[in-house]
Formats: sequence, C-alpha cells, structure tokens
Amino acid sequence: VENRDASRIEALLGTLHPADIADLLEQISPLERSELLALWHGGIDGDVLSEIDESIREEVIEALPDNVVAEAVRELDTDDVVDILEDLDQEGQEKILSALENADRVAVEQALAYPEHSAGRLMQRETVTVPEFWSVGETSEYLRRADWLPDQFYHVILVDPRMRPVGYTTLGRMLSSPVEVLMRDITEDSFRTVKATDEEADVAYYFNQYHLISCPVVDENGRLVGVITIDDAMNVLDEEHEEDMLRLARVGDDSSIQDGPIATARQRLPWLAINLVTASLSAMVISQFDATIAQVVILAALMPIVASTGGIAGTQSLAVSVRGLATRDLTSSNARRVVRRELFAGMVNGVVLAAILFLAGTFIIGDYHLGLVLASAMLVNQVVAALGGVLVPLTLNRFGLDPALASATFVTTLTDVMGFFAFLGLATVILI
Amino acid sequence: VENRDASRIEALLGTLHPADIADLLEQISPLERSELLALWHGGIDGDVLSEIDESIREEVIEALPDNVVAEAVRELDTDDVVDILEDLDQEGQEKILSALENADRVAVEQALAYPEHSAGRLMQRETVTVPEFWSVGETSEYLRRADWLPDQFYHVILVDPRMRPVGYTTLGRMLSSPVEVLMRDITEDSFRTVKATDEEADVAYYFNQYHLISCPVVDENGRLVGVITIDDAMNVLDEEHEEDMLRLARVGDDSSIQDGPIATARQRLPWLAINLVTASLSAMVISQFDATIAQVVILAALMPIVASTGGIAGTQSLAVSVRGLATRDLTSSNARRVVRRELFAGMVNGVVLAAILFLAGTFIIGDYHLGLVLASAMLVNQVVAALGGVLVPLTLNRFGLDPALASATFVTTLTDVMGFFAFLGLATVILI
Repeated sequence: VENRDASRIEALLGTLHPADIADLLEQISPLERSELLALWHGGIDGDVLSEIDESIREEVIEALPDNVVAEAVRELDTDDVVDILEDLDQEGQEKILSALENADRVAVEQALAYPEHSAGRLMQRETVTVPEFWSVGETSEYLRRADWLPDQFYHVILVDPRMRPVGYTTLGRMLSSPVEVLMRDITEDSFRTVKATDEEADVAYYFNQYHLISCPVVDENGRLVGVITIDDAMNVLDEEHEEDMLRLARVGDDSSIQDGPIATARQRLPWLAINLVTASLSAMVISQFDATIAQVVILAALMPIVASTGGIAGTQSLAVSVRGLATRDLTSSNARRVVRRELFAGMVNGVVLAAILFLAGTFIIGDYHLGLVLASAMLVNQVVAALGGVLVPLTLNRFGLDPALASATFVTTLTDVMGFFAFLGLATVILI
Repeated sequence: VENRDASRIEALLGTLHPADIADLLEQISPLERSELLALWHGGIDGDVLSEIDESIREEVIEALPDNVVAEAVRELDTDDVVDILEDLDQEGQEKILSALENADRVAVEQALAYPEHSAGRLMQRETVTVPEFWSVGETSEYLRRADWLPDQFYHVILVDPRMRPVGYTTLGRMLSSPVEVLMRDITEDSFRTVKATDEEADVAYYFNQYHLISCPVVDENGRLVGVITIDDAMNVLDEEHEEDMLRLARVGDDSSIQDGPIATARQRLPWLAINLVTASLSAMVISQFDATIAQVVILAALMPIVASTGGIAGTQSLAVSVRGLATRDLTSSNARRVVRRELFAGMVNGVVLAAILFLAGTFIIGDYHLGLVLASAMLVNQVVAALGGVLVPLTLNRFGLDPALASATFVTTLTDVMGFFAFLGLATVILI
C-alpha cells in the first residue's frame, strides 16, 4: 500500500473508524508508521489521537505537523485532551496547550491540577444542568437553543442555586413525560455523586456496582465541577484488570504489545532478578540436605514434584483472592470464612494428591517409605500453598498495598522453600 | 442484627441499593442467609435477584415464596430474566417462566432458543423504533404517548418498512434539534448492528472498540430483534477478563469466592493432577542424570534456580500475549514482530541473568566451571521461555482454542523440562 500513493491511502483509510485507524497505526512497524504519517494526515483527527495506545502516541504526535495536531485537539472534549496530555513530556504538553482556545486551556490546566488517577482527571467539564424547579418543557426549550452541548450526554443534572447537584433525569424519561411535569419529579434513584479527588478505581467500581451511565463530580463544597461518563469508567476498569493480570504474572503494568525488545526486557528483569534471590533461598535449603541426597539420589529427581504442585495450588488460591479483592467480593466480613474454605480445600486436595503419590511411590518406585515421604510433604505443602495464596494478598491489602503486586513472589517462594524443606526433612528422618 | 426482628431488618436494608443487598446476601454465611430470607423478603425484588452472584442465586430463589419470585421477575426486562434463567435447573426455570405474562414468556423462550453466549441471549427485546422518515417532533410526540418504554434507552432506532434498522439517533441529539428536522438527518456515525447469533465476546469487543452505548441486534434477514446496552456489554467484558485471569492461574473459570470448600477443591484438582504428570516428566529427565548428581551433589541444590527463573520468564511472556490476544492488539499482522521481540528480549535478559550467575558461581561457590554451566543453562532457558510464552498461545489461538486455557501448563512444563535438561546435560559434559 505504501508506494507513496497518498490518494490511494486516503481512499482506503478515509472510511475507517478512528479506533480502527489507531489500531492500524499500532500494528505496523515504526518505519511504516512514520512513512504513512508523512504521506497522509488528513484522517488523523482528535478521535484517532485519543484512541491510539499511549506507548506510541508521543511518536505519532511528533511526526505530525503542528497545525494538524492543533486542529485535532481543538475538537475534543476536555477529558480526552487531559488523557492525551498526561502521557506527554513537557514540550509536547505545551505544544498542545498552546493550540487550545483560552477557555479550554484553563479547563484542561485545572483538570491537570487534580492528582493523577483521580476523578478530576477523568471527568469532562462540559455538563448539562438546569435549575431544579424547571419543567420538562422549559428544559427541552433550553436544550434546543444550546449549541455547546457535549458529544455524549445521557442525563440532565438538576442543580440548586449554588450549583450543587440534587438529582438527575435520563433523557429517555424526559422525552416520555408531558411538558408540564417538573424535572425534579422524574429524577432517577441511581443518582449519586463522586468527589473530584476520589480515586478513579473507586469511581469505576461505582459504575459497575450501580450500573451508572454517567455520574456528576463535585468539589469539596459539593458544587458541580464535571461529569464522568461510562466510557471513561469502562476504560479504567479495563486498565485495572490489565494491571492485576500483568502484576500477578510479574510484568510491569505499563507494558504493551507495542513495546520494543529493550523496553520489554527492562520491565521484566527486576522480577527475574528477585527470583534469582528467592531461588537461592531454596538452593540453600536444599544444600542443607546434601548428605541425604548423596545417599538417596532419587530424592533430587522427586523433590520438584512437591514444590511445583504446591506452586500451582498457591497460584490458584492467589488468583481467586486477588480477583475477589478487586471486585470487592472478598471483604473483612467474609475473609475469615474464605480463609477457612481455602484451608479445608487445601486439605482435601492435599489428601487426594498425597494418596496418588503414596501409591505411585509404593508401586512404581517400589519403596513405601519413599511413598510416605512424598505423600506427607505434598499434604503439608498443599495446605501451606492454599493458606499462603489467600493470607498474603489479604495482608498486603490490609497495609494498603496492591495485593496483586508482590504476592506471586511471596507465595511461590513460600511453596518452593516449604516443598523442598518438608520433602527433604521428612526423607532425612524416615529414610536415613 | 438477626435476632428475628423483621422490622429492624426492614429499616436497615430497605434503603440499600439492590446491588448492595445482593452483596450482603453473598457475604453472610449460608445459615444466616436462609434465616434472613425467611424473616425478610420485602426488599428482594427483581433487581436484587439479577445482581446476586450465580453461585448462590438458585439457593436464594428456592428460599423465597413463589409469589415473591413471581412478583420479582415480572418487573424485569427480558434480558435480565434470561440471565437469571440460564443458571437455573429445569424446575427453577419453569417456576419462573410460569410467573411471567404470556408476551414476556414468549420473548424469554425465544431468547433461550439462541445459543449460549450469543448476542441473542444478551439483548433485550424492548426496542424504541420509529420510521426513518419521521421528524424530531413526530418522534417526541410518539415517545410522550408510549407507556411501555424500557428502563434504559439511549437511542431511537430508525427502521425501514421491513423493520430493518437503518440508523439511530441519540436522545441528546434529538433534544437539541428543532422539531421539524428529520430523524434520518441527525443519525450517528457510530451506528452498526450485530447478528443475534454473534458471540457475546465479539459484541463486547465492538462496544469497547467503538465506544458504543447501545447496539441494535438483527436476525439473519437483517430485521431488528432487540438491542444490547452498554451495561450488558460491560458485564461480558468483566467476565471475559475474569475467565482469562483464572484460566491462566489454572482455576476453573466458574469459580467464585462464595463456593464452598468441596466445590473449590474439585475445581482445582484436575490442574493439580495434570501437574503431577508433567512434574513426573521433569523427574524422569532429572533421573537420567543421577550419576552426575551423585558425583556433584550441589547440582541438586542449584538446578531449581534455572528452572524457576525460566518459569517466571515464561509466565511474563504468556500473560502479555494472552492479554494482547484478548484485546486484539496481537493479530496475525504483527505476530511475527512480537515473536521476534520476545526472542530478543529473552536473549537480553538471559545474558544479564547468565552474567550474574556466572559471577556468583565463580566467586561465591568458587568454581568457574559451575558458573559456566549455570550461565549457559540460564541463557538457553530464558530464550525458550520467552518464545514458548508467545508461541503456545498463538498456536492455541490459531486452532480456535482459548489461548488462556492450557497455556500455563504447556509453558511451565517446557521451562521446567528444558531448565533441568540444559543444566544437568551441560553439567555432565563440562564437569564430569
């Protein structure tokens, strides 16, 4: 396609949805990307810029002429501009801020004054409000005359004279009501507000829990400063999920499929290096038993079975607990019951696996003492794994830390060390 | 609270949001739950039933008097009734179907005729449509007279005389337009339809990719049969995330924090048993080298370092790849580049970790031959891990299998076997 034929590119890409253009830009190689952008920037509007993955957005903005960028950001709602600005360096930020009209620039700068990951960064400033005593007819008339309405809005917010939101009405409800009905008589039960300083993760939880479509944002005096819509909340939820999953797998949570090999290696190296240290712990435990291993060499072959099965049981228990904490299904009121359940489930699986190993040890290897050692070590390690998998994230959570972040390292170190220690320790006692 | 004081319970719970009542029911113990339901069911309406986790919904429905259940389901939109019915047994389904009015029952039965996890199951039948040639004024008048409008609707769908959707208009756009404007002149670009037989995962992807709020559903003739709204799509997305995360951790994906210990143990046992088999593979590899280990016992202590660091590198690469496939950022057009990136990143980290191990072997253990063995085995295993982490899910995906499901087992078996084999094999060649 890229035979420098700008008009063919226009014909091919001009009809695509901004999200698809962004995906295309993400998936081609950096070289193809800069060639494409040099040839064609008619379709790179604000929507494409806000769809594009953060990891290559800076590159794209730099490749575009200033006037194209300026044109692109001017048509966006303030929350989308803030989203783009957050990830740029100083110079890029100024380039975009200077392209905005005065009123928009002030709004964006105010939003950037809120802490990162707060509701204030997420909200759009454009709100649709009417006094609470207006009727449906008055509101309809007002909306019909307004020419500054945001791209997407789903509710009309009712405010008191001091701009404090007191309720909201869905557009559907408004349209199906007689014109003389008062707006305050057809408000929705689901109405609730969030503070501009609230964490965006809490806001996303509210949207999910109460099926909100939009939610007014207030300042410390309860005055309306903006509104958050469900598409922003859905984004946050998506990012939180990704963060949990990548953190559990010990990958830096800002990693992306577009990163180059060096960035990828650098994100992963710290966790690999930490594992060298924790694995050395296991090695030290094992080396305490070198006399035992020298006498019964087959122990060296069998010991990873106990350790690795423990590691998997720990990962299972951990994933369920981290997910439960994220969805707030695991709380202080049922933590005790969940821990008891894990203990019991660990015992059940420990007994089943121990029985299999005892039979295998007795009949395949032909040494029921060895079977006994395998079985007992497996039982101990399954219980430790199940408990560790839930207690480690609960403890991290209690201290205000992200339960997904370091849990996997703690839990697998625990199950490795305990697996080797129980197996070799019991072997020393029973076999030697 | 539960001292059989029904009026106090009413006072406490009566004001809660249905989602919060459902959470409360989930978090108390089964005994408390049945006592609470026996004392108080005034607040258990349809919304509570549809909020409640599937794992205990059946229990709750059985605990309630038939007339309360009947009353509860009658007020729900059809998609919520379908959602509740899906997880019930035959008897529970009939109990609920018989409580519905005829028209609703037919609608629910038709929805259940669509395959599980299809758009047809997800949609609500209640749609708001007008002929494409109507004006804003005519539409407003029509909506004001209609008394059957769904709880939530965000668009008016324009249909041709054969009920095929041709566009849609947001309520916001409608409200801000003069009454004489034709509806078809203010339709949205984002308009697209899905087929009733489409996979719900694809539908959720559309909502996320194109920022849809609602999406009309058509039958094989292109005729409108329902509409899917963003809250349903958000739910599906949430479930897909959960499924990926739990499957990667080798937990059955219908597991829940409310499950009892036996159910929990049973969900996890298959993967643990499979691991016994794959770990036996590693044991067999190790036992091939028992003569080597008998001569140099310290090898037994060091070999888990190589295997476990490889396991982590494999998990890292795997998590990023599975996530990329889920968000469709990893596609056939960039798969080759991503594999190359993983290869290169694996080599970089392999070299760094190998250097650390070589120094540690040479200066801490005091044997540079051993350092060399550790370093080379680590390098080999890091590269294998990085490649396995991306190639295994890509291959599963190509064969139409869920890349999250069995990947972790494949990859850790690969890194374990390769780690032990490379380390002990090199040791046999270099040290003996």
